[in-house]
Amino acid sequence: MQENIHLSLAQARNLSHNTLTKAGFSKELASAVTDTLVACERDGCKSHGLYRLLVCVKTLRAGKVNPVAEPLITRVAPALLKVDADQGYSLLALEKAADSFTEMVKQQGIAAMVINRCVHFSAMWYDVEKFTDRGLVALAMTPSHAWVAPAGGTRPLFGTNPIAFGWPRVDGDPYVFDFATSAIARGDLELHRRDSKTLSPGLGIDKEGQPSTDPAAVMEGAMLTFGGYKGSALATMVELLAGALINDFTSPESLAFDAGTGSSPMGGELVIAMDQLKFMGETPKDAQQKAESIFTAITDQGARLPSQRRFTNRKVSVTEGITLDRKLYEDIVSL
Amino acid sequence: MQENIHLSLAQARNLSHNTLTKAGFSKELASAVTDTLVACERDGCKSHGLYRLLVCVKTLRAGKVNPVAEPLITRVAPALLKVDADQGYSLLALEKAADSFTEMVKQQGIAAMVINRCVHFSAMWYDVEKFTDRGLVALAMTPSHAWVAPAGGTRPLFGTNPIAFGWPRVDGDPYVFDFATSAIARGDLELHRRDSKTLSPGLGIDKEGQPSTDPAAVMEGAMLTFGGYKGSALATMVELLAGALINDFTSPESLAFDAGTGSSPMGGELVIAMDQLKFMGETPKDAQQKAESIFTAITDQGARLPSQRRFTNRKVSVTEGITLDRKLYEDIVSL
Repeated sequence: MQENIHLSLAQARNLSHNTLTKAGFSKELASAVTDTLVACERDGCKSHGLYRLLVCVKTLRAGKVNPVAEPLITRVAPALLKVDADQGYSLLALEKAADSFTEMVKQQGIAAMVINRCVHFSAMWYDVEKFTDRGLVALAMTPSHAWVAPAGGTRPLFGTNPIAFGWPRVDGDPYVFDFATSAIARGDLELHRRDSKTLSPGLGIDKEGQPSTDPAAVMEGAMLTFGGYKGSALATMVELLAGALINDFTSPESLAFDAGTGSSPMGGELVIAMDQLKFMGETPKDAQQKAESIFTAITDQGARLPSQRRFTNRKVSVTEGITLDRKLYEDIVSL
Repeated sequence: MQENIHLSLAQARNLSHNTLTKAGFSKELASAVTDTLVACERDGCKSHGLYRLLVCVKTLRAGKVNPVAEPLITRVAPALLKVDADQGYSLLALEKAADSFTEMVKQQGIAAMVINRCVHFSAMWYDVEKFTDRGLVALAMTPSHAWVAPAGGTRPLFGTNPIAFGWPRVDGDPYVFDFATSAIARGDLELHRRDSKTLSPGLGIDKEGQPSTDPAAVMEGAMLTFGGYKGSALATMVELLAGALINDFTSPESLAFDAGTGSSPMGGELVIAMDQLKFMGETPKDAQQKAESIFTAITDQGARLPSQRRFTNRKVSVTEGITLDRKLYEDIVSL
């Protein structure tokens, strides 16, 4: 028996949609979640791909996500849109508000979209690409569960607190980065524990606050931020902007809400977007060219632009489909 | 003879103002620059304090700053303010636009201030505190001179590209961070070279692109970003947002403009500010308390909040004044 099975993107979409609706999610929510899961599989981001169907159903069964959520959109200020996700996934709120938010940004120059009361498990690049596709520059962030210690500290406080940024380019794929402010992704840490692999130094501490390379000890202790006190400052900023400022859960509150069920983080997300044309003024081509010069200067010296591997995978998957681990496929089908 | 001389803050202010006007700067520009120089001395940030008077006069004599600049403010979109600094220092543009920008932010919820065609040498925390003082959350960034290589690269491209963030707190000093996206500050690198001190590993490369701990070799080669590819992505974002997006100099353009004169960087600055009350909604005290809980959780485990040393120094200097190296004082007086 082959270890992998092959699926076209349409088949992957059907598998996801059927699994989610069978579990009790509304068609709308199933569709919004399916969009990101299939996009991640397509781009080779397995950690945020169809595997997450298992987590979605687990979160549903734990009562930690509203499977029939109906997002409510409110313009609370000329440049501020709030979407109450009704305890559904962030993705449906994002989908529903994307067009009116884009219009707002083009009118105002810059605007913020706040998603409140959402369950969040998806890759942040997906959220910023939603807006680079519409010609906007976008910055997005969200807290998660309190797993990461501040620089100089000994106990978990921050989430992995990803920050994603996207810049639409004149031709082809946008410039997009998306990284956790933790020194290692939570999923990577879990894989190290599952495979009993030692961690590189500097990624985590044990529950006594001592440096540790044992993944199990780090999961009982805390992960560290990337880049020392600077990464720690950025992680704090994410708690402030996408937690306190939007009056939603910080990472400790999300973990408390989880109550040991192993569900996806609950809370809010902040997206700030800017209209290139409004900012660039009378000579937008010159300004776009400045950006292109930076990209060229990066790649000309052998350095890489982020997301390039994803875009390469994407081109292949669109025609050739994706492969899925057979065990994972069977686990999904038996949900 | 004593090595240090003592100055009250009023005396420091007079020294700075007289030096700048004598050199040919307008009273307005001298006043705006003096504000930040004295604030830095007061906070113990000597690298951005009165020592910079020497750089200001050098930049003036090189013809790289307009000493009688008159900033022009334009509201180009409901949430977007542009200030043309007229090739003067960013500080006068910031000072002149601060009140109208604050009003815009309070009306719109979020807004951006673009400073174009400015000379920039000052500490970024000063710029964000201008807005935390007015009750706003603020994020600021600027490119500089191309001194820093992208992760995986071999040649200088980015500036030290600082990012500063400020959050007004209910009582007392704001939460403020301000860091270079380079692994070491330019001034620190220069001090290491002057004192012939070896650098820690991982901060720079020589002109062949090889890792080096020799400060002179790194100044001929390139500095590295903090935090590997993540810091490199943030440095890229600063070039894009505070260079290309605002249609102003990127760091390579600023360095080219400098033409070997050793002047301060020329280009633009981006400030994004948000109104806490508009974002927080109906229960702002709860939201503020979420932020305070994060700060308490940081300090309770022995970790530090950024800028605390500055705020401590500030309390002392306001009553006791500052000390200045006698040699520096004499260099300033003889300008």
